[in-house]
Amino acid sequence: MTEQAYTEIAYEVSDGVATITLDRPDRLNAFTTTMMRELVRAYAAADADDAVRAVVVTGRGRGFCAGADLQRGGSTFNAEDPGRAAERRDIGTIGGAPRDGGGVTSLTTAACRKPVIAAINGPAVGIGATMTLPMDIRLASETAKFGFVFARRGLVPEAASSWFLPRIVGISQAMEWVATGRVFGAEEALAGRLVSKVLPPEELLPYAYGIAQEIAENTSAVSVALSKQMLWAMLGADTPWEAHRVDSQAIYRLGQSADVVEGVQSFLEKRAPAFPNTVSADYPDILERWPSRPAGMD
Amino acid sequence: MTEQAYTEIAYEVSDGVATITLDRPDRLNAFTTTMMRELVRAYAAADADDAVRAVVVTGRGRGFCAGADLQRGGSTFNAEDPGRAAERRDIGTIGGAPRDGGGVTSLTTAACRKPVIAAINGPAVGIGATMTLPMDIRLASETAKFGFVFARRGLVPEAASSWFLPRIVGISQAMEWVATGRVFGAEEALAGRLVSKVLPPEELLPYAYGIAQEIAENTSAVSVALSKQMLWAMLGADTPWEAHRVDSQAIYRLGQSADVVEGVQSFLEKRAPAFPNTVSADYPDILERWPSRPAGMD
Amino acid sequence: MTEQAYTEIAYEVSDGVATITLDRPDRLNAFTTTMMRELVRAYAAADADDAVRAVVVTGRGRGFCAGADLQRGGSTFNAEDPGRAAERRDIGTIGGAPRDGGGVTSLTTAACRKPVIAAINGPAVGIGATMTLPMDIRLASETAKFGFVFARRGLVPEAASSWFLPRIVGISQAMEWVATGRVFGAEEALAGRLVSKVLPPEELLPYAYGIAQEIAENTSAVSVALSKQMLWAMLGADTPWEAHRVDSQAIYRLGQSADVVEGVQSFLEKRAPAFPNTVSADYPDILERWPSRPAGMD
Repeated sequence: MTEQAYTEIAYEVSDGVATITLDRPDRLNAFTTTMMRELVRAYAAADADDAVRAVVVTGRGRGFCAGADLQRGGSTFNAEDPGRAAERRDIGTIGGAPRDGGGVTSLTTAACRKPVIAAINGPAVGIGATMTLPMDIRLASETAKFGFVFARRGLVPEAASSWFLPRIVGISQAMEWVATGRVFGAEEALAGRLVSKVLPPEELLPYAYGIAQEIAENTSAVSVALSKQMLWAMLGADTPWEAHRVDSQAIYRLGQSADVVEGVQSFLEKRAPAFPNTVSADYPDILERWPSRPAGMD
Repeated sequence: MTEQAYTEIAYEVSDGVATITLDRPDRLNAFTTTMMRELVRAYAAADADDAVRAVVVTGRGRGFCAGADLQRGGSTFNAEDPGRAAERRDIGTIGGAPRDGGGVTSLTTAACRKPVIAAINGPAVGIGATMTLPMDIRLASETAKFGFVFARRGLVPEAASSWFLPRIVGISQAMEWVATGRVFGAEEALAGRLVSKVLPPEELLPYAYGIAQEIAENTSAVSVALSKQMLWAMLGADTPWEAHRVDSQAIYRLGQSADVVEGVQSFLEKRAPAFPNTVSADYPDILERWPSRPAGMD
Repeated sequence: MTEQAYTEIAYEVSDGVATITLDRPDRLNAFTTTMMRELVRAYAAADADDAVRAVVVTGRGRGFCAGADLQRGGSTFNAEDPGRAAERRDIGTIGGAPRDGGGVTSLTTAACRKPVIAAINGPAVGIGATMTLPMDIRLASETAKFGFVFARRGLVPEAASSWFLPRIVGISQAMEWVATGRVFGAEEALAGRLVSKVLPPEELLPYAYGIAQEIAENTSAVSVALSKQMLWAMLGADTPWEAHRVDSQAIYRLGQSADVVEGVQSFLEKRAPAFPNTVSADYPDILERWPSRPAGMD
């Protein structure tokens, strides 16, 4: 398979971090079917590349993502519209309906075994807001704005956000933002725990890369990959007894690994660790409840 | 069916908002079987009435609801007490036990497809506190007090609050309030995220109506109804893949609706929307996990 | 069965409160298999003893618990290491793997029917941090430190913490702490809702005992025991309808009990209650989803 170019996002890897940049600045990076496909491809690339320890997602220009591109007007969301139907033919159906494109993106993000950090540099509205929810950490510039505006367009929250949003901000805050469809600023997002930090615009990306570096320099890639999938998976588990079953498998496997030997010895010797194992070769595939890697379009 | 009068609550609809007022001010609006029946009837009325876009619940006088009326003393909660048994005969049983009356109220609130805003004007204790948990937004007057006092009476939290409370305030805060049975003020409720805002008494209802109006003026009724049921339902779903299935159905249906055409066009034309669809005629009944409307007493 | 002495913890009961003190101060109370066994025994004792209304857990000396004792170096977590295998032979397996020892402790804590209060007096790292998550309330001294350092050692969070941690602090905060493996102070723990209060060192235990006394003096032991199990169990239930079923059973049983008569009458008479019932004799065993008491090693 020859490598395809990206046209609506940029993807680059540097110093252990993959950066995905939403890249339609003249449209405030509005979301399209092409962007969806490229995001899926980028997350799969980051998941598969052992040189990538974390992913930072941001937007080009003054916006993060203004939501679905509305150039088709009132038929934008109509699955029977010939233009839309044609461009999405291969995406498949679920329960008899065409798969929600935002959900394809969100679930790919959720399945990526590298931590994903949102660096929200400007307006994040509709799918621009919901696409950040499966990311692990959300940081915002003071210039960011947010809106779960679906009810103002005759829609409902998508991209699996009815699962993610109440778990992140609580059901009451989620209901207030969703029922009003209000657009709100970074400080309200921080108070409501949608983002964990608000920064001056010029400090946003450096701060995001700082967290990525802290991960890359100190931790086992296999540990981080499995921890991410365990935390998200157990967020939906009925009891901690299910977690105990997974933990026991995980500790049994990792407890015999070269990474744990290096982790304990480097700690006892008070030096930086150099973990030998890789996600591509050594990831223990023990979680049934959560996919272990992006599945692409199927 | 002729319309029955309310005797222990007041119910009125105005400007797109239904107001339910607990109305036994000489008893601090203490909860009775009659009040339970009238609340169930009122939520069903609000659910069915397309003129109602949101519901505000408050109390008459200086209290919100002081808890179960204890006029029967130590036999108040005894299902074998002839007085209690007689008045609840038609409410039915579940798992061999008489259905908990607070739960009948709570689950009716949860099933109502209009957003419900609690305007807690004074003491909210026992069922007075737990009945607010399935409401979508809780606002408190500075004069409000709260108490999950069940353990001080030899009882346990009811009205399905063991499900709602830890999801709203977190398990540790829930355990502290429930294990001590302590009565606490509005500021502690705000710090613990039980309420989202504390207001001077005279600003409480205007603020609640302001949120209700923001919903009524800007959003599709069908969108808000389905969003509410989706957010609550997915709060109990195991994985976001279940949400993706629901989303795909919802976006497929709503994406072809008259409301989405109006929502997108009004946005592009920078004017207020006038959504044509109604909950009674156009609600897509796609959620299996959560009831789509109040079921009354059965 | 003759009573066994404790060697790595201390266990004492006074004024209705059991205190468990991690007691290897020269090793910052590092966790061992022996400590695990003694914790299981102590929680079972507290659960069975009607004189115990609450449990306080703290550490001797300047630490709370520095994590797993690493005296075996790189083979510390290797289940095939002869020393480790020998000392854990009777602990059993789950899904074909040796049971995670931290999980044995955590699930015993979760099953104990008395409220458990962590008084975290110093560093709580690794299992020292995760063992506190199934406790009901976490308080910290200003001198406490926390670290979910597993990824820095080549491991993953254990002790069922992938279930507990995201429910307590939210998934984003959990992911940041777990992916970086960072050690952080009491103020960051408070801001992230890992602990509910930070206190000067000398006020930590008095504050913890104050909560324990508030429980002991005001509430029914049976009510608190059943409330604890209901709140934790329903945190994993899919819908509030499951809670309604449990509530209806609970209110039916407790509503006829001597405790509810005393609870209502003492309230109406404005005097302190004297509840006659005990957990050992009167606990209604109605929860299927959560164990009703510690199961020890099986």
